[in-house]
Amino acid sequence: MSELFTVFPPAEAFAAFARGCSPIEVTEIVTLDAAVGRVLAADVVARETLPSFARSTMDGYAVRAADTHGASEQSPAYLRVIGDVPTGMVPTAQVGPREAVRTHTGAMLPAGADAVVMVEDTNLHPARDGAVPEVEVLAAAAPGENVLAVGEDIRSGAVAVPAGRRLRAADAGGLAALGVTTVPVRARPRIAIVSTGDEVVPVAAVPGPAQVRDVNATTVAAVVEQAGGIPVAAGIAPDRAEELERALRSVLDNSDAVVLSAGSSVSVRDLTAQVVSQLGAPGVLVHGIAIKPGKPTVLAICDGKPVVGLPGNPVSALVVAWRIVRPLVRLLGGETVSDDGLDDEHAIDAVLDVPVPSRPGREDFVPCALARDRDGVPHATPLFGSSNLIFTLVRADALIAVPFDRSGLGAGETVRVIVP
Amino acid sequence: MSELFTVFPPAEAFAAFARGCSPIEVTEIVTLDAAVGRVLAADVVARETLPSFARSTMDGYAVRAADTHGASEQSPAYLRVIGDVPTGMVPTAQVGPREAVRTHTGAMLPAGADAVVMVEDTNLHPARDGAVPEVEVLAAAAPGENVLAVGEDIRSGAVAVPAGRRLRAADAGGLAALGVTTVPVRARPRIAIVSTGDEVVPVAAVPGPAQVRDVNATTVAAVVEQAGGIPVAAGIAPDRAEELERALRSVLDNSDAVVLSAGSSVSVRDLTAQVVSQLGAPGVLVHGIAIKPGKPTVLAICDGKPVVGLPGNPVSALVVAWRIVRPLVRLLGGETVSDDGLDDEHAIDAVLDVPVPSRPGREDFVPCALARDRDGVPHATPLFGSSNLIFTLVRADALIAVPFDRSGLGAGETVRVIVP
Repeated sequence: MSELFTVFPPAEAFAAFARGCSPIEVTEIVTLDAAVGRVLAADVVARETLPSFARSTMDGYAVRAADTHGASEQSPAYLRVIGDVPTGMVPTAQVGPREAVRTHTGAMLPAGADAVVMVEDTNLHPARDGAVPEVEVLAAAAPGENVLAVGEDIRSGAVAVPAGRRLRAADAGGLAALGVTTVPVRARPRIAIVSTGDEVVPVAAVPGPAQVRDVNATTVAAVVEQAGGIPVAAGIAPDRAEELERALRSVLDNSDAVVLSAGSSVSVRDLTAQVVSQLGAPGVLVHGIAIKPGKPTVLAICDGKPVVGLPGNPVSALVVAWRIVRPLVRLLGGETVSDDGLDDEHAIDAVLDVPVPSRPGREDFVPCALARDRDGVPHATPLFGSSNLIFTLVRADALIAVPFDRSGLGAGETVRVIVP
Repeated sequence: MSELFTVFPPAEAFAAFARGCSPIEVTEIVTLDAAVGRVLAADVVARETLPSFARSTMDGYAVRAADTHGASEQSPAYLRVIGDVPTGMVPTAQVGPREAVRTHTGAMLPAGADAVVMVEDTNLHPARDGAVPEVEVLAAAAPGENVLAVGEDIRSGAVAVPAGRRLRAADAGGLAALGVTTVPVRARPRIAIVSTGDEVVPVAAVPGPAQVRDVNATTVAAVVEQAGGIPVAAGIAPDRAEELERALRSVLDNSDAVVLSAGSSVSVRDLTAQVVSQLGAPGVLVHGIAIKPGKPTVLAICDGKPVVGLPGNPVSALVVAWRIVRPLVRLLGGETVSDDGLDDEHAIDAVLDVPVPSRPGREDFVPCALARDRDGVPHATPLFGSSNLIFTLVRADALIAVPFDRSGLGAGETVRVIVP
């Protein structure tokens, strides 16, 4: 038999693979509302200082802090109320000694004032006999109290959002605050998806008696899309070396990477590895990963383009897509990815209800059900049974990740669970 | 002063609000490749049984298990190899007593056989003198061993994927296996986003000296989109009661819900609550939530349509959008949402590096940096400073969630962190 390959730990396999990959260089300009979820291609530098004016953070009175020194309920300070500044308006009054101006949350601080006394700490005495009204201040304000100073949010010239970040809601908010309406983002990497296997027919086809539909093209496309890539469906390639090589060469030319699901039988997998190794230098880097399911995985770089050969089994293919293809797509898309390819984005902690056996020197992924107990703590219950059936994953809420160095996980242990 | 409202715990506030909301009823038919991330509108029932034929899960020999009974390295069984069934082909041979057929992973099991012996447990003796080749079997196989039985994945008539599920990669894979190429999904709820505040100008505008740009429309739209809704930008409404009411009525007619960011000052917030209360029955359900930041939030149902009044402060608005608007959009979109609105989708556990003070009877959300230690455990370090500045969130990796019943969190504690 063949498949006499060296099996790599998944973290090492990904690291070796990632060293040969670099982010694609094409960028696009998109509007801010289309930018969330995209990866910023260059630092966005603030062209303004925010806030651009000192603002009140409370409803109350803009004052000179010194005038409230020592004020208390027993010994209030009394200030003349010389005006009212609504939000959005430029104050006309200037606050002089023993004067105050009514202010509102978000309003511009009038000249002369250096603090705001909360309305809850005051009593207003209406004007009598044509005099101005007076406010009784029951608590001292420190200089700067309840005031946002100019530049406290961001200063002109500072990096507002760094290159390489996949933009989140808050990032878009920061850019909106600065008036940035378009941003440069990385183009989404195009990932060609090829299936092989003499028994595999397209999803829309009616399989013959010994045939099955192509599940992997669908699941891998979903993983690629979720990771920010564009899945390019490249159909089912024949299992014969020359035809397979021709099919792979043509898709490689038109994409940034190729993900191949490599058929189920050992002979087909060997054929695939052999064809991939001829596509370009340096060729196959990894043939076999210490992961269950998913061991017979091929990772190659062919003339600068990454090629992943997934196992044909749908569950194995999907597990390796999560473990390897997802961080690969993020890396190609310009995101910073950890060396081992692990990301916390989809991982939560859960309490394991029953033991899960494993073997040190292998990462295991075990389908499980998740349920929260009365305290809201998630519990994971492994779904044993045929782990190579796609409906095992359809019925699962998550996958228990057994770390590489563990010989199994005990009942009651808190474990890492991948929620795809 | 006004705002003398009863402050609700966030879980109760969401539960009361959610009781008045129901999923929108419009459905759409989408192709499978566009269905991932959408919510299934009806159960998809399997119209086929999978696998539809008994399949080998290993490369090896299809045999009658009884013929291998007692076989071992010391005492092998010898079987006549009468054929080879490649994957995808219908076997022509029938396995009789003391016969075997070469098989491959995924291949159809020939009639007569009931088990597969792994190739690793065999030695093949080539044919001599025109006789058939013989295989030496070194280990006994139990009936059914290394065979996927008909129906082991799913049976015709069973629910393949249930209504209400937001489709994941694996679900799409299961549907692909069954040949399902289109599915009915819920229409994405249309959420109108309205801003108010006399100081607020559109993102593309150059603010006057006391004005700021509309940050909340951008951040809320991002949260709505991530939750599966369609954000409908409805601009900035005036702060005057009649005009605001007219603006809200017109957007309410054309959307499934309205999210309003309600201005910063107390008077504007009171005006908003008053206008919302007049939009339809039963009107305002919640005015004030025990959450920091985000307390002055209004939740209303107006003639069957949910209306959320967010605080004007960009950080408060975004926190309440995560805590309340996100589960609302998911609920409207047909997903099952927990009564308290909490979801684990974006929460991970992290070790807190320094104490975080809080107050029992309030949920606090504290911006933090996240970093993994050498063992890969995430640590959260609170970013203190002005929590009402949008760039505090831009600089943050996540938010530490201080539960409602806690008076603070201690250094070294494992805490729940929201990664938006």
